[in-house]
Parts: sequence; structure tokens; C-alpha cells
Amino acid sequence: MSALAARYLGARTVDTGSVPVAPPGPGKVQLAPAYVGVCGTDLHIFHGHMDGRVTRPAVLGHEMSGRVTAVGPGVEGWKAGDAVTVMPLAWDGTCAACRAGNQHVCQNLDFIGIDSPGAMQQRWTVPASTLVRLPEALRLDHAALVEPTAVAVHDVRRAAVRPGERVVVVGGGPVGILIALVARAAGADVRLTELSAHRRALAGELGIDVWDPAADDVPALVERWTAGAGAGVAFEVSGAQAGVDTAVEVLGVRGRLCQVAIHPTPRAVNLHRFFWRELVLVGARLYDRSDFTRAVALVADGTVPADRLISRVVPLADAASAFGALESGDDVMKVLVRCDGTADDTAGHTTDDTAAEAAE
Amino acid sequence: MSALAARYLGARTVDTGSVPVAPPGPGKVQLAPAYVGVCGTDLHIFHGHMDGRVTRPAVLGHEMSGRVTAVGPGVEGWKAGDAVTVMPLAWDGTCAACRAGNQHVCQNLDFIGIDSPGAMQQRWTVPASTLVRLPEALRLDHAALVEPTAVAVHDVRRAAVRPGERVVVVGGGPVGILIALVARAAGADVRLTELSAHRRALAGELGIDVWDPAADDVPALVERWTAGAGAGVAFEVSGAQAGVDTAVEVLGVRGRLCQVAIHPTPRAVNLHRFFWRELVLVGARLYDRSDFTRAVALVADGTVPADRLISRVVPLADAASAFGALESGDDVMKVLVRCDGTADDTAGHTTDDTAAEAAE
Repeated sequence: MSALAARYLGARTVDTGSVPVAPPGPGKVQLAPAYVGVCGTDLHIFHGHMDGRVTRPAVLGHEMSGRVTAVGPGVEGWKAGDAVTVMPLAWDGTCAACRAGNQHVCQNLDFIGIDSPGAMQQRWTVPASTLVRLPEALRLDHAALVEPTAVAVHDVRRAAVRPGERVVVVGGGPVGILIALVARAAGADVRLTELSAHRRALAGELGIDVWDPAADDVPALVERWTAGAGAGVAFEVSGAQAGVDTAVEVLGVRGRLCQVAIHPTPRAVNLHRFFWRELVLVGARLYDRSDFTRAVALVADGTVPADRLISRVVPLADAASAFGALESGDDVMKVLVRCDGTADDTAGHTTDDTAAEAAE
Repeated sequence: MSALAARYLGARTVDTGSVPVAPPGPGKVQLAPAYVGVCGTDLHIFHGHMDGRVTRPAVLGHEMSGRVTAVGPGVEGWKAGDAVTVMPLAWDGTCAACRAGNQHVCQNLDFIGIDSPGAMQQRWTVPASTLVRLPEALRLDHAALVEPTAVAVHDVRRAAVRPGERVVVVGGGPVGILIALVARAAGADVRLTELSAHRRALAGELGIDVWDPAADDVPALVERWTAGAGAGVAFEVSGAQAGVDTAVEVLGVRGRLCQVAIHPTPRAVNLHRFFWRELVLVGARLYDRSDFTRAVALVADGTVPADRLISRVVPLADAASAFGALESGDDVMKVLVRCDGTADDTAGHTTDDTAAEAAE
């Protein structure tokens, strides 16, 4: 048997071609991915920046939804047709991080979709242990947002956001907006800062108060908003030096800065402020199963308005265009690749996106 | 009545002269300071770097021991002759930090000895609420180390050091050595890195394992020491960029970096490492009363070997020389000003210091 797969071949090159499909081995499950989201890391790979880590040809994709098609020997609890998403982590179980119960940051982590083949194909075999069950009522396009939502759930948990706390999210891309939504669901009073007018408009439509760091004096606004106390939590999701500066500056005494974005180079950090105000910086990466479970619930109950966050859906045969759409600028939020359908299925979302743009 | 006081007049100028003494007002207590330690911040003031904050002439000194000489109206629980130290903090009680229970980092904190007159004088009047009782058996020269020990206790508490954890202290000045001692008392396995051979020798005599960051590959040593896991906690006490780099690099997954030193300018921080290993940076400043209580116990029971840490004692009349001794280099650890004695009392400590140097 063979199936279609989108393959990263080298910088700026993704094709879709036929790959052989083997039945799932012991402990493995074969899936038919339905929708696969493209994330910032995938785009980074597409740009050729991670060729030292990614073995080519590489099937990318780790934000997905789909259905079980076959189960391997010894797999219990799953059957063909079950709706699932995947927590794409395989840890060694023996390193210091794993022994301390932090398997998600295993020192030899296999991140499925980067370090091993991902979901952007018609058949995908993964360890049964990675499966997360989806409610039958949850639309599979929406469910492709569970993985990035789990990131946001983990971030909000790492920052220990409390009800009533004032929270500043620096950066309003998909993860920033999801953090804002999850923090709000946790009872926080949230402000989002974002340079892109399109993204600010979308956040505003979701009821999130937004500031433009290019036009607004964000620290002064926080000072007024908090009556001089400063924010309790800031999330740095921009990946920019200016974002780090803002996140540090807005925090009040014992405020927590949750470091979410990837900063490829060291950043200048005002450590005196960390000393003076006893600030805390908390690194946050990935998620664990409890974060996934919570994320499923938040997408299923509409706390995460998936329909508004999905800007575009492209067919697997045209997967390369998903990367092109993402890098074209800020006018898209989340782009999905549909692995089990046709190009016609994308019409609804394209319309949504146009509507969002018109609302600016 | 008048008494002698050492006064900071401006950059590099400290004199000792007579100042008037008034009886203590309501809620206040008058003390006769016995010994006053000179800390890095005092030296910073001496260099003229804090003239924007310090009102001159300024009586410095906030690491002290002494005895009560008079109590003001309404003061209960204290009488002349009581041995005390002072937690030199006066907060407004109304700011956001105070309301959240973090009075020690009050947004309008009066740090007594910097923002208001300090202990380097024969009579010193302070709020009764700042007094901390000393055991009668505790030598007053030793008790002058309670305040810096309280800093170390606070730092170790902020970092949540657990028994058996591997801890790296970056910087072996007085606070770094005190942190190493307090962390060891908390059950941690401690390594100290320090550039100065004198300070390394002193730490070694106290049974602390030391590394020389100029000669040793500290991250590689930590890698071997922890069998690849990395340290659980690092304390950045050096104030240098290289110290920040080392502290970040030695930490294992979810390690905590406690930021103790004052960094006058922003530092380059490897935020990717914070993300990747889910590290935590914890700012730590000053102390609260529980830290002082614990510090008194640690100095009293010899966990802090005060005698080894006191390099020199100079008389109040010659207070300026204490600043000179401190800035002369790394061959002194803690210098005390004796406010109730004569120059002859210093002989014992001068001998100790010479012995320490000879041991190198």
C-alpha cells in the first residue's frame, strides 16, 4: 500500500508524493490524519534553518487531528474510526529529566514531526501512547488546534496564573492569542500587545483588549491599568528583544515572566529589575498529557474559537502553499493542511479570512 | 548629648565627627552599636555612585550588633542592655507589594543605612519594630554577620533549595560564601566558583569545594559531577556577565537560577536555554523577619563561622580605613567598624587574616 505525503526536501522545497505504508508494529497505531496545522517551527524548518536536526526527506506536521485506521499487536483501548489527536513526544524514560517526572523535556526527546516523521500524510503510524481521544462532537478541523492550545495551557500553568491577576501577553500570533484566551478562561484580566494590525483586529473580535507597542506606551498603560502595582504575569511570545524589554518592564513586585518564544540569540535582560522587584522568569516548553486533556476541553467548549483562528485550509497535494501562505505576512493566523479531503473543502475558511481582513 | 558618627560626605570621603543625640521618640529605641559591617553597597556609596539616592552627610551602616541604651514612649518588650541587631527596613504598608505581604520589597522602602541614617555611630535611634533579639551568648562581633547571613537565608529560601540538591554558587565574596554555607546547612551538595585565590583558599578552609573559573571548565565539571543531569540550583553572586553565563549553563532541566548580585547594566541571557530546559530565574532581594531569625541561629550555632569571615576590625574614629581596606582587593572578606571600643580590640582579627593569607 502507498499513500500521499508532503515532504520537506531542503530549504524552501516541499513536494507531495507517494510513500509506502506498512502495517503498524507492536504498540503502534496507524492513523489517517484529517487536518494538520503548520506552526512557526515548521516554517523555520521550511526556511532551511534546522537542516542540522531534520533528516530529509522529512514529513513534517505535529498539530493534527484524525482517525485511527489500524492498531498494531498489543494495542488496547483503540479501534479503527476513533477520533484522535497526538501528543507528539517520545521520551527515553531514563534521563535525569524523565526520572524527575519531566518527560516532556527529556534530554533525548524525540519530537515527532521534527525528529521523526510527522502527520502531513494520508497514513501516519505513531506509538499508541501518544494518542489523545477527541470527543465525537468536536470537528476535526477545530481539533487541529488542540496541540497549540496545549502549549498555551502549559504556559499558563507554568506561570501559575491566578483568577483576577493582571496578565500582559507580548505577541499576538497563534500561540499568543491562545495564551490570552486560556489565561482569560483561568480568570485573569488580560491585555495583548501586537504589532500587526490584522492580528490586533482579530484579537479584538475575540474580545481581547489589545495594544499596539509601536503607537502605545505599553509600560505607562500598564502602570495606569494596575494603579502603579504592575502586572502579575507577562508572557513573552514575540521572540524579539523589544518584547523581552516590555515583558520585564510591565511586571510588578514578584511578577512572573513566562518565556514562551524561541530566542535564537542571547537577549539583553534587565537583571537589576529581577533583583529589585524579585521577579521570576519561567521557561515553558511543550506540554504534558494533562495539558492536552485540558486543551481538548477548551477547544471543544468553544473557549478557543477555532473557526476564527483558522485562516486557511489547503489540500495535501498543495501543502507547499501552506508554508507560502504563512510566510506571506501577518494576514494569516493558522493554516491547516487537509490530508483526507479535497481543495473544495477550504472554501469556508477562505471566506472567514476575507471577512476578518474586511473588518480591519 | 553628642556622640561620634562616621559620615559619608561625598565620593571617597568619610570622616568621623560629633553629632547631636536626641532621646528616642515614641515607638523608637536608641542603641549603642557595637560592630558595624561594611558591605558592597556601602562601598558603592563610598565611590560616589549612589549620590542621587544618598542625602549627605550620610551615616552609613546596616550590618550591625549592639545594645539597647534607651526606649521611647510606648515601646514594650525592650530594655537598656538588651543585645540586638536590626532588620534595617521601614515600609509604607500601603503599596501593592506591602498589601501582597512582600513588605521587604515595598515600592517606597526606606532602607535604613542608605535612605536614612545608619549604624556607624555611637548612638543610633531606630523603630522598635526593626529590632531582632540576640542570644546573650552570641559575641557581638559575630552578630554583625547576622544581616548578610539573613540575605543568604533569603536567597536559599527563594531558590527553594532541597536536601541533596546540587548547587553551584557563582562568586565567593561574603554573600556567596554565606549562601554556600546556608545551602550546605539546608542539605545541599555545594560547589563554589571564585576568581580570587584568597577567597578560594578561605572557602576551602571552611570545607567548601571550590573551582577557579579562570582555570577550570566549570560547565564540564558540573556535567561530570551531576552525571549529565546538570545542577538543580545556581546562585549568581558575581555581578559579572561571565557569571551569568556560567549560572545558566550549569543548570539541568527545571533548574533555578537565583539572581543575587546587582547588575548595573542589562546582561546577555541565553533565553533559549530557559525555554529548552524550562529553567527558572528567581530574583532575590533583602530578607524578612523569618530570615533574620534563622540567620541569628546559624551565626549563634557556628554554622556561619563568623570568626573566619571577619578579616579586620577598625575603630569608629578610623571608619574611612574600613572602606579603603575593602576596596584594596580580594584579600579581605568582611571588615567591621567597632563603634564601642578602641583600636586595640582589632588585633585578634588582623592576626586571623594574616593566617588565612599564609595558608594560600
